[in-house]
Amino acid sequence: MMNKLFLVLFLAISCQLQAQSDKDAQFIKTIYDNTLSKGQSYEWLRTLTKEAGPRLAGSEAAQKAVELMKGLMDTIGFDTVYLQACEVPHWERGGIEIGYLVDAKGQKEKDLNILALGNTVGTGDKGILGEIIEVRSLDEVHALKDAVKDKIVFYNRPMDPTHIQTFHAYGGAVDQRVFGAAVAGKYGAKGVIVRSLTTLQDDTPHTGTNAYDPEVKPIPAFAISTNDANYISGLLQKKTVSIFLKNNAQILESSTSYNVIGEIKGSTNPEEIILVGGHLDSWDVGEGAHDDGAGCVQSMEVIYNLLQLNYTPKRTLRCVLFMNEENGLAGGITYAAASNDKGEFHLAALESDSGGFTPRSFAFEADKSVQIAYGQALAKYLPFLEPYGMNLSPGGSGADIGPLKVQKGLLLGLKVDSQRYFDLHHSKNDTFDQVNERELKLGAAAMTSLIYLIDMYGL
Amino acid sequence: MMNKLFLVLFLAISCQLQAQSDKDAQFIKTIYDNTLSKGQSYEWLRTLTKEAGPRLAGSEAAQKAVELMKGLMDTIGFDTVYLQACEVPHWERGGIEIGYLVDAKGQKEKDLNILALGNTVGTGDKGILGEIIEVRSLDEVHALKDAVKDKIVFYNRPMDPTHIQTFHAYGGAVDQRVFGAAVAGKYGAKGVIVRSLTTLQDDTPHTGTNAYDPEVKPIPAFAISTNDANYISGLLQKKTVSIFLKNNAQILESSTSYNVIGEIKGSTNPEEIILVGGHLDSWDVGEGAHDDGAGCVQSMEVIYNLLQLNYTPKRTLRCVLFMNEENGLAGGITYAAASNDKGEFHLAALESDSGGFTPRSFAFEADKSVQIAYGQALAKYLPFLEPYGMNLSPGGSGADIGPLKVQKGLLLGLKVDSQRYFDLHHSKNDTFDQVNERELKLGAAAMTSLIYLIDMYGL
Repeated sequence: MMNKLFLVLFLAISCQLQAQSDKDAQFIKTIYDNTLSKGQSYEWLRTLTKEAGPRLAGSEAAQKAVELMKGLMDTIGFDTVYLQACEVPHWERGGIEIGYLVDAKGQKEKDLNILALGNTVGTGDKGILGEIIEVRSLDEVHALKDAVKDKIVFYNRPMDPTHIQTFHAYGGAVDQRVFGAAVAGKYGAKGVIVRSLTTLQDDTPHTGTNAYDPEVKPIPAFAISTNDANYISGLLQKKTVSIFLKNNAQILESSTSYNVIGEIKGSTNPEEIILVGGHLDSWDVGEGAHDDGAGCVQSMEVIYNLLQLNYTPKRTLRCVLFMNEENGLAGGITYAAASNDKGEFHLAALESDSGGFTPRSFAFEADKSVQIAYGQALAKYLPFLEPYGMNLSPGGSGADIGPLKVQKGLLLGLKVDSQRYFDLHHSKNDTFDQVNERELKLGAAAMTSLIYLIDMYGL
Repeated sequence: MMNKLFLVLFLAISCQLQAQSDKDAQFIKTIYDNTLSKGQSYEWLRTLTKEAGPRLAGSEAAQKAVELMKGLMDTIGFDTVYLQACEVPHWERGGIEIGYLVDAKGQKEKDLNILALGNTVGTGDKGILGEIIEVRSLDEVHALKDAVKDKIVFYNRPMDPTHIQTFHAYGGAVDQRVFGAAVAGKYGAKGVIVRSLTTLQDDTPHTGTNAYDPEVKPIPAFAISTNDANYISGLLQKKTVSIFLKNNAQILESSTSYNVIGEIKGSTNPEEIILVGGHLDSWDVGEGAHDDGAGCVQSMEVIYNLLQLNYTPKRTLRCVLFMNEENGLAGGITYAAASNDKGEFHLAALESDSGGFTPRSFAFEADKSVQIAYGQALAKYLPFLEPYGMNLSPGGSGADIGPLKVQKGLLLGLKVDSQRYFDLHHSKNDTFDQVNERELKLGAAAMTSLIYLIDMYGL
């Protein structure tokens, strides 16, 4: 008798679970349908990229972007939309960027496609002239030591094209851009040029962060196009090569900027926060469309989508557009510090900052003490995402949400098809027309689906 | 004693299998490395698209493409490269394509973005003028019957954007383009305009095959841009709308064209043929870059790659660039018929004809009697492909290799990220610059890997 009762109960629970599972699958289908047919992210991205444009922290355009996005967030249906102040560095490229090769007679031989790296100092009015010394790594400069004194160090290790994920190739080359000037400066180099971080062979230089060593006098640092890098490298096989560089970039007083935050209070578990976000600032060339306008509008779409579908979140949902990811991370750091001060707990935070391409997976990370448990919890959700070509894998989430790790919640990053990203990244070509509407929206739909599952069932 | 011997033998075999498996994984890694760093497909595609350009069967450009690709194939290292003649239809668009809305006074009201569908007849010098009647399906026309007499039927069922795979959305709408004129003509319509098969909202019309019913007098058929389709549909809510259409397309005498074939004879199993191919012809607008220049150069890359790596094929490898897929399939039909006549057996045939985008999976199909066995055989190879983001799924392979199904071999199709394909497909925008070098080469590498495994271990 007991056995029969148990069996009936078991079947009843199984049926209920199956029904819920079917309901969730149906809801996720509705999320995708709604995003692909009625989503707003693409039009929001048009507004951001065309009306604010490139928007480095501290710039007028960044302030314009803050106001624009707050205005758009106000239309979505959040309980509250507010700005969170943060102190950001203020670097300006200036109007002068000149780079050319100089022949033995001291005359201009060939103009070069250069672009100052972010945070770099200016050369002064006279510019700098020096012999080029080509290296492939920071270690090589450490070994050369004083041999680089008064030279222009040319970092020319390419991104390795054999990586399937281009982010791995980027990771294998980016140290040259970030630390190249600091290391070369230590041994007395006059300046550095760094091969652009792209797998393309073309004439477009790509900027990005350069980080000086506070102990070392800063020297000017420039990106150079891959075509020019190859040209110079070829020339160096035959003769000594000198280069003239001039720019008037400057580091100004830091100023106040803002994270833009929208929030819906949870109906049953308001103390558990689920964050979705991207970064609002961009480099000062192109339009910051993939990096990271895409992540911002996708994050907004998540909330818009759920509200359009009349979903009532159990937990507190927060959409955060972070300021200053590109050259300081002030937004992410400020946000986490304020959250810690208030004793908040972010159950999950999901960042999209890999470009608005076709989504492929969610990377996840967490404090070691909870990582396995979260991975197991996430695995339950995978069957709902797989039909849409999504996967899950341990890995880095996003720079802006990184500082939240101490809260021991789950950190997630949207990972996308990465083949085209570094064709555009940090260059004049990262523009709205390079974003495909369907690819962007598929990312937003995947994000919405996962946020829905975590909100419904926790971790 | 016997048990111990068995154990030793078992372990020895296991180790050998593991060693072979490691060796295969390493070889596939080498295939990817080599393709991504030294592949030629992208440059070959540049040659084809820029030197031959759009190349509908029967055209001079198609003949030029045949000669160009034979020339390139001659450099790869095939045992033999040859042309296989096939009789192809010859349709010409002509120089006149005019479409505009006409107001109540008979004056031009608005120019329209139209493009004659493939194989369509001309309107005659006077053009055609008629009231537009909007429908969403062929069935609707069958129901309207004589109500469409002397009208211009406007097929306006959009591709459904909620499909994740855009090919499914295409499949759900393409009947309007293929059979729209035949059905409307049956009931006496003067002509048809068909909403372009794209999920984009823009001004670009997309052509493609229109198939007349031999029993029905052919009427002119045009694609119209999605923006114009929406505009007309909006106008029809308010008033009757008339349209003037004029073109001078014509169907000329069929002529001789060619499949381009390269072959390497198998070293141990020459009687088993493994085919890899795409179609060389394209529509007469754009450059036929994704459709299907990409598939042609990827197929060539497969053989080039294996030869560069000093691989000696066991089975006979054939690279076939088929003629006339777009408006007749003469190449595919001729090839299969000749192969059947010779009593050949194609163990496997792999076609790439979904665009040169990031590869996602191989679709496979076969005669019912062998499909399950082949699926099981393929499943063994999946672990070698998964690290590169590839999957396997039952499904359609490719139009050109379809006629080989009777040989009861395995038919495979390269399936790719499909989000951008129908932005470009059959339009002026299917150009070389829309192809990403890495995405193209990843497809070629995936194809090479699978062909290698099938050649090494059979099915």
